[in-house]
Amino acid sequence: MSWTLAQRAHKMNPSVIREILKVTEKPGIISFAGGLPSPSTFPIEAMAEATARVFAQDGRAALQYSSSEGYGPLRDWVANDLKKLGMAIHPDQVLITTGSQQGLDLIAKVLIDTGSRVLVETPTYLGALQAFTPMEPEFVSVNSDAEGVDVADFSAKAPAARFMYVLPNFQNPTGRTMSAERRVALAKAAAAAGVPLVEDNPYGDLWFDTPPPPALSSYEPDNSVYLGSFSKILAPGLRLGFIVAPKAVMPKLLQAKQAADLHTPSFNQRIVAEVLKDGFIDRHVPTIRALYKRQCQAMLTALSEHCTGLLEWNAPDGGMFLWGRLPAGVDAVQLLPLAVEHNVAFVPGAAFYADHADARSIRLSFVTASEEQIHTGIAALATAIRQMQQRP
Amino acid sequence: MSWTLAQRAHKMNPSVIREILKVTEKPGIISFAGGLPSPSTFPIEAMAEATARVFAQDGRAALQYSSSEGYGPLRDWVANDLKKLGMAIHPDQVLITTGSQQGLDLIAKVLIDTGSRVLVETPTYLGALQAFTPMEPEFVSVNSDAEGVDVADFSAKAPAARFMYVLPNFQNPTGRTMSAERRVALAKAAAAAGVPLVEDNPYGDLWFDTPPPPALSSYEPDNSVYLGSFSKILAPGLRLGFIVAPKAVMPKLLQAKQAADLHTPSFNQRIVAEVLKDGFIDRHVPTIRALYKRQCQAMLTALSEHCTGLLEWNAPDGGMFLWGRLPAGVDAVQLLPLAVEHNVAFVPGAAFYADHADARSIRLSFVTASEEQIHTGIAALATAIRQMQQRP
Repeated sequence: MSWTLAQRAHKMNPSVIREILKVTEKPGIISFAGGLPSPSTFPIEAMAEATARVFAQDGRAALQYSSSEGYGPLRDWVANDLKKLGMAIHPDQVLITTGSQQGLDLIAKVLIDTGSRVLVETPTYLGALQAFTPMEPEFVSVNSDAEGVDVADFSAKAPAARFMYVLPNFQNPTGRTMSAERRVALAKAAAAAGVPLVEDNPYGDLWFDTPPPPALSSYEPDNSVYLGSFSKILAPGLRLGFIVAPKAVMPKLLQAKQAADLHTPSFNQRIVAEVLKDGFIDRHVPTIRALYKRQCQAMLTALSEHCTGLLEWNAPDGGMFLWGRLPAGVDAVQLLPLAVEHNVAFVPGAAFYADHADARSIRLSFVTASEEQIHTGIAALATAIRQMQQRP
Repeated sequence: MSWTLAQRAHKMNPSVIREILKVTEKPGIISFAGGLPSPSTFPIEAMAEATARVFAQDGRAALQYSSSEGYGPLRDWVANDLKKLGMAIHPDQVLITTGSQQGLDLIAKVLIDTGSRVLVETPTYLGALQAFTPMEPEFVSVNSDAEGVDVADFSAKAPAARFMYVLPNFQNPTGRTMSAERRVALAKAAAAAGVPLVEDNPYGDLWFDTPPPPALSSYEPDNSVYLGSFSKILAPGLRLGFIVAPKAVMPKLLQAKQAADLHTPSFNQRIVAEVLKDGFIDRHVPTIRALYKRQCQAMLTALSEHCTGLLEWNAPDGGMFLWGRLPAGVDAVQLLPLAVEHNVAFVPGAAFYADHADARSIRLSFVTASEEQIHTGIAALATAIRQMQQRP
């Protein structure tokens, strides 16, 4: 055996969700499992036109190596766009990343030593756990309710923590949004404890009726790192995200970025900068919001009709997911194969807990299936739960 | 101070080369410093046409999330293309990466623990040192000459090493190519010592007259990881590379890839797969070879004319770089500012050594400047060296 693996490699595991998605790739299945944006929202025509312009005007620069920081006009756009969240930042604080997943990887490299205490919500985004795990932290779950992080529990667990990771808007997996009061309180408590906040906001633009409260990072910017993404407002296949960081950490994040992939594709950055010109996003994103709101409403209606008494669920104010809880005695992992027999799939919520998983929780995505499929699928889910309850 | 950095962050440094490139960004300077492919070789028209076809035929899939392994037809193309290097591999062994720099990052995560012994050539590729450094290895330089790695020195230093990193074709920085005999001997010695080889081959297609010998990885494939890139044969701004790995490590590399950026942009992968159809590369790459051969010849001629007695240099059989050695008493780092005053730039070779740097070595790129600029720039370099020698 000539291959000696690093210790961290033994802690890495295949994505539970990707493994589940393989199981659910059965023809005819209605899947509420994936976190895939609806491809009908991808602005193909606008992107094709922008790409043709980039090739014509700027082709050689778009195909050449470029700076690790990212493309200037795109960094400018991000800095300006974040004003809407109450963030006053300079474009120099923006680092363009290969999706916001890479932002999580860079943060892990720069802030986590083996055994470092890292605080997360209960439950939390699985992709963040996966990005942090190779640097071998000790995860600590902070109690959380429908309004987000329990600030008293945060303060109790804060000592010696390297940072707390928070996804405040339409959280993956729960769909919940952190209230404005909690944000203010958490930002203050974190600054007082000397524990930085890592705020992840991939879904913030996908609100149904009202924009979410100001960004957590707007209150104590020098104690915060903010992660954003173009995956949900344009298209995930571009792999474009960004980090906003204060001067205390930006130079190290930049060095980690250089070492990781030199820079995010200049080609993709220039195309998106070209698409974003002239307020395209302001015309485009409302169409995504309207679609996802309709589909969420369809799921809530179907749940009321078919699942009353079989499931508890929340009603998100935006995003892509809602969160359900099965009746006592029904385990989500055991339910899944039976649901798949009935041609419907979901993700068992246990995967999203750093510890003390709730085996009865499930995540349902309402953005990939059509309204008609949502009704059929939720009815099938109800049948599966009922059968599960009748098993001896 | 709320930001406690990870120990590894203190070991990360800004890229010496990127810092040097900033110094040399003076208007009118002739730069032999950068490693930028000539933008005149970027096949803009073919890429623009391929992109339009991808949008028209496959737009939604190209913009959606996709598998971490990479796009099937691109993996197939890679597996087939590598036959020319004597490698018999299955497409399942190909992992598409965000540039081959990311391949180095993933290898570091999977194979390096703090203090792990990692063998490198003397000198070696700076980007690899940077990619490996965050995982905190102990680098050990293996003696190398014009034919590549000294196999006896490798065997002496091999015990307990995690792997040896080798760039056998038209090496960055030296331009040297490892002989076929050395490859066979190194592959055998590595297998005997139980030390895997990590073979990096970004320049292999850029030969002038004769293809290089079979890949190092062709001899002991189960003991080898191979890294390839589309940066030098198509365009670096796409950030597309790949790893070929045996079953013993592929699952962990794939998990590290998922955690790092989920997947390489599906958009870029599909465009390149479309460009590669119908043998485009077989028509395109010979035009790059011919250009770089002419420019290399121009530099060798200019060196003979202006630098005889002031510099020793080699004559590469391909690639982008040649390697020079200044006369006794002339330090390359001290020479650089004087050269920049004379409107010419290079990279001091010291940056490329893991230890015991040769302060008299310099790297010269012959691909970015035109033939005329090469003559002017080499004459200016000679003037600077002469002035340096005359300093007290």
